[in-house]
Amino acid sequence: MNRRGILIVVSGFSGSGKGTLMKELLGRYKETYALSISATTRSPREGEVDGREYFFKTREEFEKMIAKDELIEYARYVENYYGTPREYVEKQLEAGKDVILEIEIQGALKVKEAFPDTLLLFVTPPSAEELKKRLVGRGTETMEVIESRMKRAVEEAEGMDRYDYLIINDELEVCTEQMHTIIQSEHHRSFRNTGFMKEIKADLDRSLKGES
Amino acid sequence: MNRRGILIVVSGFSGSGKGTLMKELLGRYKETYALSISATTRSPREGEVDGREYFFKTREEFEKMIAKDELIEYARYVENYYGTPREYVEKQLEAGKDVILEIEIQGALKVKEAFPDTLLLFVTPPSAEELKKRLVGRGTETMEVIESRMKRAVEEAEGMDRYDYLIINDELEVCTEQMHTIIQSEHHRSFRNTGFMKEIKADLDRSLKGES
Repeated sequence: MNRRGILIVVSGFSGSGKGTLMKELLGRYKETYALSISATTRSPREGEVDGREYFFKTREEFEKMIAKDELIEYARYVENYYGTPREYVEKQLEAGKDVILEIEIQGALKVKEAFPDTLLLFVTPPSAEELKKRLVGRGTETMEVIESRMKRAVEEAEGMDRYDYLIINDELEVCTEQMHTIIQSEHHRSFRNTGFMKEIKADLDRSLKGES
Repeated sequence: MNRRGILIVVSGFSGSGKGTLMKELLGRYKETYALSISATTRSPREGEVDGREYFFKTREEFEKMIAKDELIEYARYVENYYGTPREYVEKQLEAGKDVILEIEIQGALKVKEAFPDTLLLFVTPPSAEELKKRLVGRGTETMEVIESRMKRAVEEAEGMDRYDYLIINDELEVCTEQMHTIIQSEHHRSFRNTGFMKEIKADLDRSLKGES
């Protein structure tokens, strides 16, 4: 079977518990996964370390990366750039690690276009009711905040169909294992094992012709 | 998540150990899987029971089933018909069982055409070398037998690409679990959960409009 890593995009509703889930998955299976680190032009916040939370870049550096096609995808929010450096991802995939990008739908679809083998996972609470509960929070939010979250959730829901799998985040433990087995099962897809199939075919052909 | 069963076609090289694998999977997960039973016009062999190994039919009965579209797929080998009765499969799927059909590539592709959600699994030994070893057998076969097996394997290999997953049968225990997790992961595919997505979307829309 192939052991090149799989490129995985994880998106999900705000409030889906995606962040905690990623931390749990990466903590449990250190050897299997690598989390892609984004580059950004925004200033580091207190406690953030270059190369850990983000690669911090000047605007000039970032635009040079764009020009040299060194980013798999990038976007601009307000006045800052955010993007996924290609080199780190490629290296990890080559080393057989499954690389996880935590980005939103627009970025996800750009990545899928550039790399059709990308696996798109969408994390969601187990029901609409539970989702709403999480959006509303503990009742300490203003109606404005809740409404803006709700609108965002509607937009996020719009894109769900474009993802390959839904990851239902009910119980952290169960969900982490589910996500892990979903990704590992993907390694067995035929289209990820064209080398193996080619070899079997070539070898059978040779045998039939009495060449080996 | 949806709990309607998944229709699964399992094919594989002769000598891939497919039969043993199926028996192990069905034995371990009795509540999860159902094996589809074929209908045939051939006579029962000693020890075969109607409704267990096959549904034994007269030619007239079988042709009536064809005419009434009661078979998912059928084929004729030499002078006998073989086919997959629709009713049993539908009932099991409705009951939430994942239903396994053990058929060859021509049948597999017909099923996939009629039911695009069908999951196609191809069982193969771990390497071309191992496959050849199994085809050659214990050295007691005539060259003719080996060559005919080899030719058949070449044909089977031709179709491998059309399957969704490759199941590498190296160790029975490991392979059974792998097959099980691959199938169970498939339940999380977005296209198998359109109901869930629709519900979340509708519910969010209603909430945003203040209807609930």
